[in-house]
Amino acid sequence: MVIIMKPSATKEAREKIIKKMESLGCQVHVSQGESYCIVGLVGDTRKINPSQIEANVHVDRLIHVHHPFKLAGRLFHPEDTIVEVGGHKIGGGTPVIIAGPCAVESEEQLMTIAQAVKKEGAHFLRGGAFKPRTSPYSFQGLGEEGLKLLKKAKEATGMPIVTEVMCQETFDIVAKYTDILQIGARNMQNFPLLKKAGKSNVPILLKRGLSATIEELLMAAEYIMSEGNSQVILCERGIRTYETYTRNTLDLSAIPVIKELSHLPIIVDPSHATGKWSMVEPLSKASIAVGADGLMIEVHHQPELAASDGAQSLKPEKFARLMESVRKISSVC
Amino acid sequence: MVIIMKPSATKEAREKIIKKMESLGCQVHVSQGESYCIVGLVGDTRKINPSQIEANVHVDRLIHVHHPFKLAGRLFHPEDTIVEVGGHKIGGGTPVIIAGPCAVESEEQLMTIAQAVKKEGAHFLRGGAFKPRTSPYSFQGLGEEGLKLLKKAKEATGMPIVTEVMCQETFDIVAKYTDILQIGARNMQNFPLLKKAGKSNVPILLKRGLSATIEELLMAAEYIMSEGNSQVILCERGIRTYETYTRNTLDLSAIPVIKELSHLPIIVDPSHATGKWSMVEPLSKASIAVGADGLMIEVHHQPELAASDGAQSLKPEKFARLMESVRKISSVC
Amino acid sequence: MVIIMKPSATKEAREKIIKKMESLGCQVHVSQGESYCIVGLVGDTRKINPSQIEANVHVDRLIHVHHPFKLAGRLFHPEDTIVEVGGHKIGGGTPVIIAGPCAVESEEQLMTIAQAVKKEGAHFLRGGAFKPRTSPYSFQGLGEEGLKLLKKAKEATGMPIVTEVMCQETFDIVAKYTDILQIGARNMQNFPLLKKAGKSNVPILLKRGLSATIEELLMAAEYIMSEGNSQVILCERGIRTYETYTRNTLDLSAIPVIKELSHLPIIVDPSHATGKWSMVEPLSKASIAVGADGLMIEVHHQPELAASDGAQSLKPEKFARLMESVRKISSVC
Amino acid sequence: MVIIMKPSATKEAREKIIKKMESLGCQVHVSQGESYCIVGLVGDTRKINPSQIEANVHVDRLIHVHHPFKLAGRLFHPEDTIVEVGGHKIGGGTPVIIAGPCAVESEEQLMTIAQAVKKEGAHFLRGGAFKPRTSPYSFQGLGEEGLKLLKKAKEATGMPIVTEVMCQETFDIVAKYTDILQIGARNMQNFPLLKKAGKSNVPILLKRGLSATIEELLMAAEYIMSEGNSQVILCERGIRTYETYTRNTLDLSAIPVIKELSHLPIIVDPSHATGKWSMVEPLSKASIAVGADGLMIEVHHQPELAASDGAQSLKPEKFARLMESVRKISSVC
Repeated sequence: MVIIMKPSATKEAREKIIKKMESLGCQVHVSQGESYCIVGLVGDTRKINPSQIEANVHVDRLIHVHHPFKLAGRLFHPEDTIVEVGGHKIGGGTPVIIAGPCAVESEEQLMTIAQAVKKEGAHFLRGGAFKPRTSPYSFQGLGEEGLKLLKKAKEATGMPIVTEVMCQETFDIVAKYTDILQIGARNMQNFPLLKKAGKSNVPILLKRGLSATIEELLMAAEYIMSEGNSQVILCERGIRTYETYTRNTLDLSAIPVIKELSHLPIIVDPSHATGKWSMVEPLSKASIAVGADGLMIEVHHQPELAASDGAQSLKPEKFARLMESVRKISSVC
Repeated sequence: MVIIMKPSATKEAREKIIKKMESLGCQVHVSQGESYCIVGLVGDTRKINPSQIEANVHVDRLIHVHHPFKLAGRLFHPEDTIVEVGGHKIGGGTPVIIAGPCAVESEEQLMTIAQAVKKEGAHFLRGGAFKPRTSPYSFQGLGEEGLKLLKKAKEATGMPIVTEVMCQETFDIVAKYTDILQIGARNMQNFPLLKKAGKSNVPILLKRGLSATIEELLMAAEYIMSEGNSQVILCERGIRTYETYTRNTLDLSAIPVIKELSHLPIIVDPSHATGKWSMVEPLSKASIAVGADGLMIEVHHQPELAASDGAQSLKPEKFARLMESVRKISSVC
Repeated sequence: MVIIMKPSATKEAREKIIKKMESLGCQVHVSQGESYCIVGLVGDTRKINPSQIEANVHVDRLIHVHHPFKLAGRLFHPEDTIVEVGGHKIGGGTPVIIAGPCAVESEEQLMTIAQAVKKEGAHFLRGGAFKPRTSPYSFQGLGEEGLKLLKKAKEATGMPIVTEVMCQETFDIVAKYTDILQIGARNMQNFPLLKKAGKSNVPILLKRGLSATIEELLMAAEYIMSEGNSQVILCERGIRTYETYTRNTLDLSAIPVIKELSHLPIIVDPSHATGKWSMVEPLSKASIAVGADGLMIEVHHQPELAASDGAQSLKPEKFARLMESVRKISSVC
Repeated sequence: MVIIMKPSATKEAREKIIKKMESLGCQVHVSQGESYCIVGLVGDTRKINPSQIEANVHVDRLIHVHHPFKLAGRLFHPEDTIVEVGGHKIGGGTPVIIAGPCAVESEEQLMTIAQAVKKEGAHFLRGGAFKPRTSPYSFQGLGEEGLKLLKKAKEATGMPIVTEVMCQETFDIVAKYTDILQIGARNMQNFPLLKKAGKSNVPILLKRGLSATIEELLMAAEYIMSEGNSQVILCERGIRTYETYTRNTLDLSAIPVIKELSHLPIIVDPSHATGKWSMVEPLSKASIAVGADGLMIEVHHQPELAASDGAQSLKPEKFARLMESVRKISSVC
């Protein structure tokens, strides 16, 4: 850590803080400039409560040298983490494709789409049974009935399942049916849910919050990992900006950034990022080119009849073209 | 609703959508321009699933004429809602002051601060027992022990309590001790929690999410109200922007906007908005001047020893000055 | 400055950078931690080119301890700057009101509005002659003809003039007619224009850019001041965020922040910030309460016939009410 | 256009606005709902001043059906524009690579880098002679001396030149030396400069502003085109968001969006977008995969000695690797 003291800080204030830091077990190095005083802290800084330093009226700023994430960070875990589910390696160099409808609507709908995406080479089936909707008056998902249909589709196609869990209360029931548990963007900082996920042994697909920084995403992963579950897959799904033409702004820079900072695999969800089906293929290609470990794509055979997110769903024939493009890009990356 | 058809839309596509809308019970008016076709829909539009229209490849855009919130909106509920708790009216014209520490740390700490803010005229005591923290390694609150201390402080000072509930699992235990249940910014779109709050009869203080639009905040209130609980108090606490000098950017425009759109009371939390104690007083004055129904202020007698958020906590003497300023502004507004 | 070396930095890399910094005349203090190495630099750091340090592959981060603005900063100029124009003190404790139409449209229009705002107590008359418009097909202002009308209005009412200058080419002609030269948000980082303004002796009203940080605003002021013109008045006019209900998000926190960092006066433009006349009065009250040195308000006697920005223009009677409110708030601040 | 009248609008107010619209030559279609009234306007709407409608207190909202850009839009110009410069086609299907140093520093520096990027297959040489810098104390470029060096480098390598023009005053001198004139992000809404560029016959490289929407970028192009210069190349270079790990957030969704909305070519500048050399190659690959017509890349043989932007400059050997990657991606797209 580095403490920058205010120009107005007295000698006494400076010495008091130095003594306190030393008493907590740190080594302290002082660089006294004309206006500001720089206090470098090394050694064991774990006993320091940053809030208390920042509350000191003589302190201008406190700068953290280490990233706040330990388990999710690459510093002490340099090799890539590979999460293996149902025979598929996420993070192993070959992009993994998760595809399916936004929401499970009926057996016929799910089976039709599941067979279609399986045929084109998708590895995992997605489909929402518990749906987070901004309006209480919108379709909220089929609940456990939807989970049962997902299980059927898995049995029929062999594809492992990815579905969202919205709260602690339904955690165990969802975990019973799925192969990967998705924690959605709006729950990225639902800390009790993250802790619950950390105590489970099901792999977690953690989506970046609507306005979460990369550091906050990694801290959410840290919450899960600090409880014992190290099978965390990150997902970039667009962030909120002032631009309104796309639903969100897909932050593809986050992929190489996270590859530098963390050992965890990261995939991209271009469907939610853009909200428009015509944007999904070009951004899927870009995601693979930039180094993502996989994609999550919404597919529906009848988007005009979809209960939700029809505008961003690809028809099976468009999905086939996307798979072809992705394979080509992947082969030269 | 208004549907704008794409310039490329064929006559068949146009007629098909018009027929479908009519079959759902709407009245349809068409304005055919040179390139675009405008389809105005009035009457009973409740059966329309907007997602399905937006998924139509011949549709350029769908425009909602009505706001999506009904119960929270002013259109069908023109008079202001007043939430009365422990003899204090929130929304009744006189600003209500909620003050106290970020977190409950100990009996001595809480009692000292409670007595201090009571003395200066605060109406409610705040204090966190369950704390949402971005790091799993930070102080997470005293839990039920903290709730018990809040109850003691209430008995000693007569001030009703405001404290945060983080999840459904601890909802009932928190509800047992508190007078107003706070739902924090990171939980503003935790829909299961909102539904739970809607089924309770405790007044809810709902904080705006870090990057929530005003419409999303009102839709979160709608979730609570649609389950039966109409005692909702909104709270503006700063939004995430590119500016880094303050922790968040306090959006005071939201106050008059919400007064136009909704009948619900709204207060301001300048402590979390700015993250800096020196900004709290000027922004408190501005909040009252702009028409807020109250303030939530963090106070600590020893910020340098606070377990969390010391940098934004006012000492009791600064809080006294703030109360004085607020009273003056309030008297001329 | 503080250099944080990467954990991977070798001893040689560290020593090389230390030697270079010493050769440039700095004093260097090293705190070697387990992973990171902290290099504190004090003394004369002016010869350091930060870009070169940041380009060093062994450097994790470079932290600036001093703010980059010197002339605009409060550190070496602790007392408030007061800009005096036409007998009015901007920054002297009493809020200054600048009012008038968005654009000068005709003699009758300008005179009517000028007389109206003068009557209600405005100190300065605003009005655009050269208008920056996002569309090339929109009304671009009357040009020099508009400036002549402003001069007439000044002669008739005694109010000094504030009008915008859009480029170097028209700088001298605008400067000839006006008392305060406004540099608009879109030109805040038009560096040649800032330099030109710095060489002039007309007071400059510098508006914050649409997505400018507070530091960038102060650096734009520094550009002007570094050329010799120290009469700079800052103006907060809303920043771009994801919220769409208001045109921009008025950042009132910027007022106390700038009061801490800088000695320059700062006013607020609530008309452009919100884009809606009904928001102007409440945000004007908040601006005065938070400590702004003045307001800039758009007024039009016939908003429905205004050539531009009618939706945010107050009618004279609403402006009268605003003046009354502002006076009351001001009297207790 | 569509006008949504407020629920409070009287019959008289409605009829008055309808009459006015008809008197301006529009056809008007009214859909009267229970609360709101929808007024669809088709036919010749050019005489309508939107500001005047929005200023009507009975109007809730005005919705534009057409995009505001005509010349830059694809509706009336469906085929792609190709800008041909020095034998290279920008927009013709093969990505064009512009490379070189941030700033021209010396003859030796420029020649070394120019030869290096030429050898690896770059098509254009970039280099700043007039530099927009946020600090008045930073290196501002060599000015005309820099332009002369660029001309020398062109003669030596055969590569056409891209360099920035900062203002009208130096426009003609810069235009004399360069093959493509760059208008930088901070000048994207410098309307007098855009008009000047529109009157020139030099191709313009127009960078997206720091917080410009896609529509604003296209309106800036419209300014240039409306003056007669149709040779406009757009450039995505990252937008300002709350994320601080990268300098800006590269908005790659903008590429397919602009391909839908406009016929103009668009390239990507990943160097300025990220500010970090290690991000440049992955984002270059993604840019080509998503459909960009080219790249602008900063290259320096000695980043640690670069006068500016060293941290984002690639060494020639890294640039060689980038070119190899880009060729592979391009071959399968």
